[in-house]
Amino acid sequence: MGREIVVVGGGAAGLKAASRARRRDEEAEITVIEKGEYPSLGRCGLPYYVEGFVHDISNLMETLSGDVRDEEYFKKVKNINVLTKTEALSIDRKRKAVKISRNGRDDELNYDYLVLATGAKPVRLSVKGVDADGIFSLTSAEDALKITEMWMNESIESAVIIGGGLIGLETAEALERLDIDVTIVELKNQLLWNSFDFEMAELVRKCIIREGVKVLTSTTVQEFITEDGKVKAVRVNEKILPAELVIISIGVEPRTELAESAGLELTEKGAIKVNEYLQTSDPFIYAGGDCVENINLLTGKHVYTPLGSTANKHGRIIGDNITGGKSKWRGVLCTSIFRVFNADAGRTGLTEKQAREAGFDPVIAISPGPDRAHYYPGFKPIRLKLIADRRTRKVLGAQAFGLGVIDKRIDVIAMAIHRGATVDDLAEVDLAYAPPFSAALDHVIHAGNIIKNKLDGLLNGITPVELKRRLDAGEDLYLLDVRSQKEFEARRIEGYEVHNIPLSELRNRLDELPKDKEIVTICAIGTRSYEAARLLMNKGFEKVRFLDGALATWVF
Amino acid sequence: MGREIVVVGGGAAGLKAASRARRRDEEAEITVIEKGEYPSLGRCGLPYYVEGFVHDISNLMETLSGDVRDEEYFKKVKNINVLTKTEALSIDRKRKAVKISRNGRDDELNYDYLVLATGAKPVRLSVKGVDADGIFSLTSAEDALKITEMWMNESIESAVIIGGGLIGLETAEALERLDIDVTIVELKNQLLWNSFDFEMAELVRKCIIREGVKVLTSTTVQEFITEDGKVKAVRVNEKILPAELVIISIGVEPRTELAESAGLELTEKGAIKVNEYLQTSDPFIYAGGDCVENINLLTGKHVYTPLGSTANKHGRIIGDNITGGKSKWRGVLCTSIFRVFNADAGRTGLTEKQAREAGFDPVIAISPGPDRAHYYPGFKPIRLKLIADRRTRKVLGAQAFGLGVIDKRIDVIAMAIHRGATVDDLAEVDLAYAPPFSAALDHVIHAGNIIKNKLDGLLNGITPVELKRRLDAGEDLYLLDVRSQKEFEARRIEGYEVHNIPLSELRNRLDELPKDKEIVTICAIGTRSYEAARLLMNKGFEKVRFLDGALATWVF
Ligand SMILES: Cc1cc2nc3c(=O)[nH]c(=O)nc-3n(C[C@H](O)[C@H](O)[C@H](O)COP(=O)(O)OP(=O)(O)OC[C@H]3O[C@@H](n4cnc5c(N)ncnc54)[C@H](O)[C@@H]3O)c2cc1C
Ligand SMILES: Cc1cc2nc3c(=O)[nH]c(=O)nc-3n(C[C@H](O)[C@H](O)[C@H](O)COP(=O)(O)OP(=O)(O)OC[C@H]3O[C@@H](n4cnc5c(N)ncnc54)[C@H](O)[C@@H]3O)c2cc1C
Ligand SMILES: CC(C)(COP(=O)(O)OP(=O)(O)OC[C@H]1O[C@@H](n2cnc3c(N)ncnc32)[C@H](O)[C@@H]1OP(=O)(O)O)[C@@H](O)C(=O)NCCC(=O)NCCS
Ligand SMILES: CC(C)(COP(=O)(O)OP(=O)(O)OC[C@H]1O[C@@H](n2cnc3c(N)ncnc32)[C@H](O)[C@@H]1OP(=O)(O)O)[C@@H](O)C(=O)NCCC(=O)NCCS
Ligand SMILES: [Ca+2]
Ligand SMILES: [Ca+2]
Repeated sequence: MGREIVVVGGGAAGLKAASRARRRDEEAEITVIEKGEYPSLGRCGLPYYVEGFVHDISNLMETLSGDVRDEEYFKKVKNINVLTKTEALSIDRKRKAVKISRNGRDDELNYDYLVLATGAKPVRLSVKGVDADGIFSLTSAEDALKITEMWMNESIESAVIIGGGLIGLETAEALERLDIDVTIVELKNQLLWNSFDFEMAELVRKCIIREGVKVLTSTTVQEFITEDGKVKAVRVNEKILPAELVIISIGVEPRTELAESAGLELTEKGAIKVNEYLQTSDPFIYAGGDCVENINLLTGKHVYTPLGSTANKHGRIIGDNITGGKSKWRGVLCTSIFRVFNADAGRTGLTEKQAREAGFDPVIAISPGPDRAHYYPGFKPIRLKLIADRRTRKVLGAQAFGLGVIDKRIDVIAMAIHRGATVDDLAEVDLAYAPPFSAALDHVIHAGNIIKNKLDGLLNGITPVELKRRLDAGEDLYLLDVRSQKEFEARRIEGYEVHNIPLSELRNRLDELPKDKEIVTICAIGTRSYEAARLLMNKGFEKVRFLDGALATWVF
Repeated sequence: MGREIVVVGGGAAGLKAASRARRRDEEAEITVIEKGEYPSLGRCGLPYYVEGFVHDISNLMETLSGDVRDEEYFKKVKNINVLTKTEALSIDRKRKAVKISRNGRDDELNYDYLVLATGAKPVRLSVKGVDADGIFSLTSAEDALKITEMWMNESIESAVIIGGGLIGLETAEALERLDIDVTIVELKNQLLWNSFDFEMAELVRKCIIREGVKVLTSTTVQEFITEDGKVKAVRVNEKILPAELVIISIGVEPRTELAESAGLELTEKGAIKVNEYLQTSDPFIYAGGDCVENINLLTGKHVYTPLGSTANKHGRIIGDNITGGKSKWRGVLCTSIFRVFNADAGRTGLTEKQAREAGFDPVIAISPGPDRAHYYPGFKPIRLKLIADRRTRKVLGAQAFGLGVIDKRIDVIAMAIHRGATVDDLAEVDLAYAPPFSAALDHVIHAGNIIKNKLDGLLNGITPVELKRRLDAGEDLYLLDVRSQKEFEARRIEGYEVHNIPLSELRNRLDELPKDKEIVTICAIGTRSYEAARLLMNKGFEKVRFLDGALATWVF
């Protein structure tokens, strides 16, 4: 008999580790223990199931050729024993055995190598009434099935989603599409607090509000109001929000009970501690997926990024290392992405805020515009924000939002950061151009050039957030909108004095401009205001800035 | 007065150089000479204009805000003098003057810096009848207008397109959509000879044939048959193809008459010779765009890649260097992309063939499959081919084809190559995953892992081309299709003996397999045949290969 491998957790990390181990070692005895009913579930598809877009939970367990990855599949195809409805209760590290409970009976499995892939659990909200019926998280098939059942059997008028992160937003869409009145409640002053800068998050907010979702930021949940054990409303900031359905999506945390009780080391933040081989403090026990942290490749610090993509990568590395290999895991860029209604939002690396906190000196560019040649019918708008470090010129991060294609830009920049690229690399890289795919110079390239221009002293930007703050503080900035009169009349920055001199007239009307005031040039997407800023700077105006992201990112 | 800058050529390179120069130097006197009528034309949009998808030629000259970039625009907005219908006749380098002809009169412009951005001209085909009416190339607005006029005024039944490159294919689509019967004639044995490996090019062929386009490869044009000076048919390989319209798209070559007559150095292949600053052999003359060559960053050799994206990058660098800057141009990856009907095809770096010719030891992976999570409705199939170097593990190139999203994968790999990434980088990079955008592990990552598996001795591949060749040579290979019986019966490799043992039965039926023969495992997209190959190798079968790209890339 070959080596005995026991995996706890039948999710992406666990089953990937098992599958990879099998491919490397046909003789190993491989057993996967899963306490739930649905092994190998594409958990990321749950919101699409709730929405009715994915037909059946088992679709989320299918291979491309249509086989459902259940116990029988794993046995027949991969010779892996998957034991569902089986819980791992404890680990006896000395004897190298796992105590399990199956069909109400305890049993024991010996291991040469043990893999902990126990995933995550929703962060609990400690608020009165939180255990009432109708309050869910959406992290398991069971949750999804219960929500769907409730929707089919009871009439749900209103739902409240607590937490404006990625899963909260995906769930908001799902419920809104079921014609439920949806309100998102978020503690912070913006959605996506951990992953997007304010102005980019505000673009997301505007978009989902347009679809009918209500968003309450800076809002604290005080109490769930219940009737006969069922939730009826949520009290927030002294307001009452009716809700027969509540989804709590304030994040997840590593599921570590098993590891902890076995005396394995945990990290400060409470994940299972692993080294670069994903080995725990016990050399015969590996851990991966949502129960461990990762290294942020930009800061070198630990970060908790529970993602399906990462869980699969972990699993593969563990599969190597428990079968005689020596594969290393380096870390993540905190890349994430989601679709909400027709819009997509994605990010990688550090936000501007995070970059500053991490001690970098961030320079930013925002490139709004169509996602392909604007003469190619059907183009859609996007905004790409790029963050780089002033000293090293290295790319630090990006965020993108739009109805158009943003995943491409995020992935290209993720690859760039992964390989330590500078803004100069972005500006010169040979990306694929034809009219259906991008402009001759893609947003990634423009964003690189914009930052180059700033670093070379050709351009000074002011971010929307900074401009708003300074205007509200009563500072006397001269706002110069250089679009055509027609564009200006149709839409402009409201609430402040804005002057309009079209770029085509600016050369002849320089004398209308104040020499002493700080001038902020503004246009639709940034190209004309950039040229205007160059003209003014070349003409000796000393305090000239252009509005980063232009009107396209003026979210106020 | 500031420095005098004269630019010859009002295309992307010339006008970008002029625009960038203006932004850096408000005082310069900038004049752009353009012999045609349409400056600043998005030439890449011409096929879409012919097709009627882009409404008006002037749409190809518009800024995002709807201004047509004509003489007046350049004067008013950028203070650049664009002289259209004006030809540069000769350069007097001693006196630093350009002789021009405008409105039938000769004139002269002095320069401090001269920029040659004269673009390219179609390669001529030396065949009888080539000057007849109805024979065009599609490289200028004038061509496009004439083709459209002809289509509106005469009934065109059939068209022949000579040359199966990118522009030939785009033009084929445009004409086919006008309900013209289209035949592509190509000298080589495949479409896209310069840029795609055989099997990937064959996927493109199959796709356009399905749309009604006829494709004749290994076919030589012998003569154009004309009547009253008009083309009526094309004689190829002793066959007659009726055609009232012929498009010759066998490539373009640098337009260098002006440079040549001025005694500037040319390269071996006849482009204007430039250094890394895009400076010609005369330090006061710069050149960029389609009239120069580029360095292939992978081989270090010169390569002619006339592209709009590159022309714009050149222009920007020249704009810097003629205004006191010192910007460098490094080179290209020969990235290109096009849409043909509903399918997209793209490539970057070296093909497998080119990699071998350049002295690398290429290892390949082909990853076919859906472009996003396969449970996410609306996914579409793609195939991604990755090429890496065995010794250094560095990524050398990629090609992709599909109805689904391929530009993202090509751009990510272009960025990877640009930064010297290895297959290990591809396998571990933190790409953005959510079900609407990719599988949990994207094609790029899978392709990286497939090559890693090959390099680590876990897998031996055989390419479709190699397998076909060996089968046709009568070699006794044991073809083992490991899909289900149902799938096998629906579709399989035809013309050779194929054995079917589903993967789920393989472990129990190993005794049916020959121990001595080379076994080739086959499935739909490669995952099952990979697992089958691993099983056989683990069980001691010595000559096991799997079919790279699986049935999804079996193009025979
Ligand atoms: C709604 C939603 C949307 C998401 N969207 C995305 C997305 O778009 N992109 C992305 O990358 N990620 C996304 N994720 C995250 C992704 O699903 C997880 O990161 C991934 O599933 C983690 O895999 P894992 O194997 O580590 O953990 P899990 O998939 O959670 O698997 C752990 C398993 O261990 C079992 N288990 C735990 N303890 C025991 C025990 N003691 N005994 C037996 N079994 C045990 C659990 O039952 C569970 O099945 C999303 C998650 C959710 C909930
Ligand atoms: C149908 C088609 C599709 C294409 N698709 C793509 C694509 O998808 N992606 C991509 O990147 N590229 C594509 N290209 C290529 C792209 O259009 C060119 O690379 C780009 O236009 C080159 O720019 P340029 O400024 O170097 O030359 P051009 O745009 O050709 O400009 C040169 C100009 O110089 C003028 N000129 C030449 N000699 C003189 C003279 N002596 N005096 C005055 N004027 C002169 C010419 O009239 C011409 O207008 C495509 C090209 C075509 C024809
Ligand atoms: C599916 C699952 C069981 C893993 O099983 P797996 O057999 O490793 O499946 P994958 O499709 O990921 O991997 C396929 C293997 O074939 C290889 N492969 C993929 N395409 C290939 C091709 N065209 N040719 C050859 N090999 C290919 C891959 O490299 C991989 O092998 P390796 O890891 O040994 O290198 C596990 O990931 C799982 O349970 N997933 C569902 C849950 C999930 O992913 N959740 C998170 C997102 S919602
Ligand atoms: C359009 C053309 C005249 C160049 O003019 P341009 O003013 O440089 O226009 P672009 O849009 O390319 O560049 C915009 C400038 O604004 C900058 N920019 C772009 N978006 C910006 C934003 N959101 N904020 C600030 N600056 C921005 C760019 O970096 C660039 O400046 P830089 O080169 O000084 O760094 C020239 O490219 C042309 O004639 N093109 C048409 C033909 C063509 O492209 N053909 C090939 C493809 S078919
Ligand atoms: Ca609503
Ligand atoms: Ca036809």
